[in-house]
Order: sequence, then structure tokens, then C-alpha cells
Amino acid sequence: MNIIVQKYGGSSVGTTEKIKRVAEEIKKSKEESNEIVVIVSAMGDTTDELLELAGAVTNKPDSRELDMLLNTGEQVSIALLTMALQDLGCKAVSLTGAQLHLETTSSHQKARIKDIDLSRIKKELNQGRIVVVAGFQGVTDDEEYTTLGRGGSDTSAVALAAKLDARCEIYTDVEGIYTCDPRLLPGAKKLNHTSYEELIEMASLGAEVIHPRAVELAQKYQVPLYIAESCSKAEGTIINGNIDYLEASLVTGIAVNRDDIQITLRDLEADSYILAEVFNSLAEAEINVDMISQLLDKSGRMNLSFTIPEMDIEKARELIAFYRKDWGVSDWWIRSEVVKVSVVGPGMRTQPGVAAKVFKLLAQSEIPILMVTTSEIKISWLVPAGYEEEAVKVIGYNFGLTLEKD
Amino acid sequence: MNIIVQKYGGSSVGTTEKIKRVAEEIKKSKEESNEIVVIVSAMGDTTDELLELAGAVTNKPDSRELDMLLNTGEQVSIALLTMALQDLGCKAVSLTGAQLHLETTSSHQKARIKDIDLSRIKKELNQGRIVVVAGFQGVTDDEEYTTLGRGGSDTSAVALAAKLDARCEIYTDVEGIYTCDPRLLPGAKKLNHTSYEELIEMASLGAEVIHPRAVELAQKYQVPLYIAESCSKAEGTIINGNIDYLEASLVTGIAVNRDDIQITLRDLEADSYILAEVFNSLAEAEINVDMISQLLDKSGRMNLSFTIPEMDIEKARELIAFYRKDWGVSDWWIRSEVVKVSVVGPGMRTQPGVAAKVFKLLAQSEIPILMVTTSEIKISWLVPAGYEEEAVKVIGYNFGLTLEKD
Repeated sequence: MNIIVQKYGGSSVGTTEKIKRVAEEIKKSKEESNEIVVIVSAMGDTTDELLELAGAVTNKPDSRELDMLLNTGEQVSIALLTMALQDLGCKAVSLTGAQLHLETTSSHQKARIKDIDLSRIKKELNQGRIVVVAGFQGVTDDEEYTTLGRGGSDTSAVALAAKLDARCEIYTDVEGIYTCDPRLLPGAKKLNHTSYEELIEMASLGAEVIHPRAVELAQKYQVPLYIAESCSKAEGTIINGNIDYLEASLVTGIAVNRDDIQITLRDLEADSYILAEVFNSLAEAEINVDMISQLLDKSGRMNLSFTIPEMDIEKARELIAFYRKDWGVSDWWIRSEVVKVSVVGPGMRTQPGVAAKVFKLLAQSEIPILMVTTSEIKISWLVPAGYEEEAVKVIGYNFGLTLEKD
Repeated sequence: MNIIVQKYGGSSVGTTEKIKRVAEEIKKSKEESNEIVVIVSAMGDTTDELLELAGAVTNKPDSRELDMLLNTGEQVSIALLTMALQDLGCKAVSLTGAQLHLETTSSHQKARIKDIDLSRIKKELNQGRIVVVAGFQGVTDDEEYTTLGRGGSDTSAVALAAKLDARCEIYTDVEGIYTCDPRLLPGAKKLNHTSYEELIEMASLGAEVIHPRAVELAQKYQVPLYIAESCSKAEGTIINGNIDYLEASLVTGIAVNRDDIQITLRDLEADSYILAEVFNSLAEAEINVDMISQLLDKSGRMNLSFTIPEMDIEKARELIAFYRKDWGVSDWWIRSEVVKVSVVGPGMRTQPGVAAKVFKLLAQSEIPILMVTTSEIKISWLVPAGYEEEAVKVIGYNFGLTLEKD
């Protein structure tokens, strides 16, 4: 029998009605003689509600206690979904991260998966049960509960699929991967198939359907992914293999990310040792840096801009306040109203001119550019918030990403 | 240093505001140089809300999955209370039943405590931390989550106090133990001190302040109990030792229990083997029988009435339908609108006439009596629902249980 790992996100299990619908979908998959492992997120806004409770008690919740609190969200979903499956006559059992022995590092809210002990899950599957696993959570080797941070449930699902040599289906509230968020680019096309690499670029740029961390893991272990709308007959997007360059389109999609902020440090010593210090300090505080731009001024001092996730703003503020003298920073500021617009396309590798064309389109639309970064298959522009819709439209229509222009 | 185990019930931690107030009380106890272990229940109506969610998904929730679901209630409380303590500058850590290794039987919703591994809790106390433990929950030796059923948090608290050789303080929403529920008997007096035995009789009869199971455990291990209102300066009730018969009052209190139903079986074979069968079947289904009344009719057949908790009504119904032919039952019925009124007093042992006086009072008030049972220090009358208030008043006023008559 084939093992299939299915992941249902929070919006797919947002109400007891939706949970019952999802249970019926799972039952169908089971009847196609598959062994099914289901990963569920917390219902709808549960995580936000729990954070609100914590916020009502303290301004600075301890990270261990926050994980203790957040873990309950998924535990509620797995119990309810398992009951719903049993109500349909399916044999099913729920498992928390701790019961699954999904072992993680002890870095609360950002734990990384170390290993998964398959003995319990295999035992349950062998007894013909559908196994319903709490996503997003794990346990350390000294029995502390952890959460995996952003994209945690996706990552749980892919990690389990990798260990079980299974296909991984991610069910969400959109039909699949689009060339661009249709709310931003009306008429954006759905992709029937894409590669891990393109999806990573799309996802890390805010496509929001699946977390890049999960896709990276899928790529590493070559786990076949299928992304589709839950409880829908519409065909989703298959993700596997690598880019077929012969067929590669110039631009696959556009992604928009509003989650970052820009930090600028002025007058650092022009010394690459100092740069290493800055990024090392940020890494040690577990702050992910995304875009980086560095320039020398006339006097030979260095100005540095970089973007980090908005959620880390306080940590970064403290860190810079602490080190600024060591680094020789004369002045620094945070610009939080920024948006990153990225153009992804494997064809860029072989066909030059995408950057030039986008720069021209942005200039014609008088869209200010704060920073630019490029990789092999993507180019990203940081623009002031408010300009992203115009940017997406002008790029989307000119690169054939909409149905109308196709 | 003394170890104190404090238990806060659901109404004491019903809102984040109340959690913060409770944290301040705990901080005060800690500052009196005690080592503090806190047991908390789920916030307010959380357990009911979770049951409602389960009910929206299925009519017959699996008991294992129900425990998976219910366990989240206390997990939320411990995380929030710990955060609130940390916010006040206290060192604190939360532990679930599983992390505490509070090992139970695998009987879901009615698990019994087998043992508690103190290593984790001692480690945390030695590091100066207040340990906040999830009440009501435990774990089996194969890592399944359980709940302890009614009075579970009280039982967790007393069991921990017994193992830690600690005093156990139960904080609730009433000032202590009263001669009778003041809502039923206006002017009912608060007791400053009572014995385990009297409290067991009071509690098992529905006094609702502490579960008899917890008091029995306290008595067994001679754990000193203190029952008081949370966040209040009012003196509570101390419970320790045994009854001092010299001083024993004739009647300590009156309790009312509305949680039972009465089952009547007609025309059983008059054979004590059959009776053993009936009660053995009920025991195997984990249905607690309370009052029992048995009578032979003229033809030599036996009629049997007994009371069981209302929550077990469906189980009992199935069981009787299954066995009635074996038992020779010609007819049977359930009377659910019944109330048990009990009079508790150690003085009854040495001073006869309490029963006679109560029978006379009930007859004068024209209160129908469905069943009667007696023990050394209590007498209970089952009456039709609706008559209990009159019964309590007439007994209370005539036995000096109110301030007015004192």
C-alpha cells in the first residue's frame, strides 16, 4: 500500500463543519487503499487567540511557556478530526508531537526537526488506522514541548513524508500555485506543474501557500508534493524534480512579501571583519537577514542596509543598541513600511534582459526602488509600501502572467 | 523550607485578570519562604466549550480522543499562569501531567493515579522555581494522555502534597466548608475546622467544594487540607485528623446532590448471586452505584432500586438491555428527576434519634421519600426533585445549622 501524507491548514479546519468535510475527503483517500497520515494545523484563528491571551497576561511571554500554550491549538484539531473520522466509521488515532517523538532542537518558537521515531506511527498504520498528527509541534530530548515556527505544519508534513517515503499533499484554501497572488494580479494563471526550485523562490517571497523551508526539505529528500484546495475537485499543482531548462519560461511568477522591514546602519568602518560581526550577531540572535545592500561613501566609511522579518524588530533594536559603538555606527534607522516584489523565472539564467525590462517598467510607472537583489532565477526589488500593486500589474501584464494576455 | 501545594479551580482562573490576581497571591506565599507547587484547572467554562466542540463533530466521542481534547484546557491555564508569575518577577515553570510523569491507569476520563515521579518537580523546586502543574491530567506508561474525571484537579493536588509531604491548600470561589450550601439554606454557618471523615460525607453528597476522592486520599496520607476563597482575606476551613467524638456535634451539615438518577428493576430472581451479578456488571462498566434498596414482593420475586451518576445513564441503559433476560427482569425504568438530601453528623454514632427526628420533619412538610440509606455518621433521603429546598430548610433550622438559630 502507498502511504500518503496529507496536510490541512488552519483555514481548512477552521470550524467543526469544515473538520467534518475534511474527514470525508480523508475517508475517500483511505478507500483508494492508501495508508494515510494527516497533519493538521490549529483551527482557524486559534493561534492568534492564544497569543492574545498571552498578551493579556504579560508583555514579554517566556518562549518556553508560549510553546506550552501554542501546542494546545493543534492538539484540539487532531482530537476533533480524529473523532470526525471515527464518526464516519474510520479507524483513526491522534498523536501529538511528543507522542510521535518528533524530536527537535530546544529553540522555542523556531525549533528544527532532528528526527522522527517511526515506531509509533508504523504501529498505528499497521493496525489499519489513519494517523492524525499535530503539525507545528515537537519535543526535545528532555521532554520540553516546542513549536517549529513559521511554516511549521508544512515542515512536519514533508519531514514525515520523507521519513515514510510517501507522497505529500498540502491542502489549503487556494487551488494551487499561481503566477502571482490573484488578489494583486487579476487573471493570474494557475500552474499545473512546477519545480522545487521555482516554488522555493516563489514561496520565500511570500506566495503564502507553502513555506519555503518545507519545499527545501521536499527537494532535499525528493518528496513529491501536490498542492491543492481542500474539499475541491479542481486540479492542483504538482511539484517535483528540477527545472527543465529547455522548456523554462522567462518569468514563472511574481511574489510579494510584506513581512520584512529595512534597517540601515551608517558610517561603519569599511572592514569586512565588521560586516561579519554584524551578520554573525544577527544570526546568533536567530534573526534571518534577507536582502543586503552595502555601499562605501566618499569618506571611505560604509553604509549598510538589510531587511529582516518584522517580528524580530525588537530583538534587532536591542542588538544594534548594544553593539553600535563597537561597530562604529554613527546613525541608524528602521524603515518598516516596505514591500518586496520579486520576479521568478528559470529562463532568466539563459535569457538576459529581464532585469533591464523590469527596471524600465518600474521607472515608467514612477515606482521608487529602495534596494535590489538578484539570484540565478529571481530578481527582487524593495519598494515603499503602497507601490506593490502597481508594480505587480505592470510586470504581470508585460510578462504574460495573466490569462487575458496569454 | 516548607512545600505548599496550592490548587486553584476553574472559576479562580476564569479570565486573564483573575489569573493575574492568583499570580499575586502565589507570589505572596512564595515570599513567605515556602516552596510552592500550584495545581490549576482549565479556565472557567473551557472544558464545557471543548465538550461542545466534540459534540458538534460526533455524538459518541471516543474516550481516548476526548482526553486528548480535554487535556488542552489545563495546558492553556498552566502556560498563562506561569507567564503571569514570570511577569511579576517570579521564577516559574509549567508542567503537563505527561511532563510530570503523573502516571495513571489507562481508563480514559476516569483514570486513577498510580504514581508520580518526583524527579522533575524536585529539580525545578531546587532551582527556586514555582512549579505550575496541570491538574486533572495524567499519562499512562505507553504515553497516552488521560484525565482523572470528577474532582481530578483536587485529587492531583492532594496526591502531589502526599508525595511531597506538603500541606495542601484548595482555593475556590467559596470561603470554606459550610453546614449547608447557603443558596439552599440562608444563614448557613461556615466551619472553621472539620475532620476528613465529615468532609468526605459532606463532599460526596454534593457539597461541591472538594471532591471526596481527594479528601479520602488526604485522609489516607494524613495530608493537612485548607479550603478557602481565592484572593480573599477571609479565614477558610482547616481539615485534619479524625473526629473528636467528645466534642462531636449531633449534625454538622446538610448536603444536597442532584447528580444521580434512580434505576428500578422489577421481578429479579430472589438470589443473592443475581444481585452480585448486577452490581458486578455495573462495576465492570465503571458505573458507581450509590444508594441501594432491595425488597421481596409477595410472590418471592425481588425488586431492586439503586442510584447512579446521571452521566452514566446511557451505559447503564445498554447494560441492562443486554442482561435483563439473564437477570429475569420483567420491567425496569429510570427516574431522573431525583435529589438526595443527606444529614451528616458524627454525633449520630452515639446519640440516636436523628433519623427519627428527620423522618418526622419530612412527614410534617409532606415531602415524599423515595429511598433511604444510612451510614455511621450520615443519613440520606432520596426525594423527588423540587422538594430539596424545603427539606434542607426544615432540617437546617431544626438542627441549629444557621447563624440565626445559633
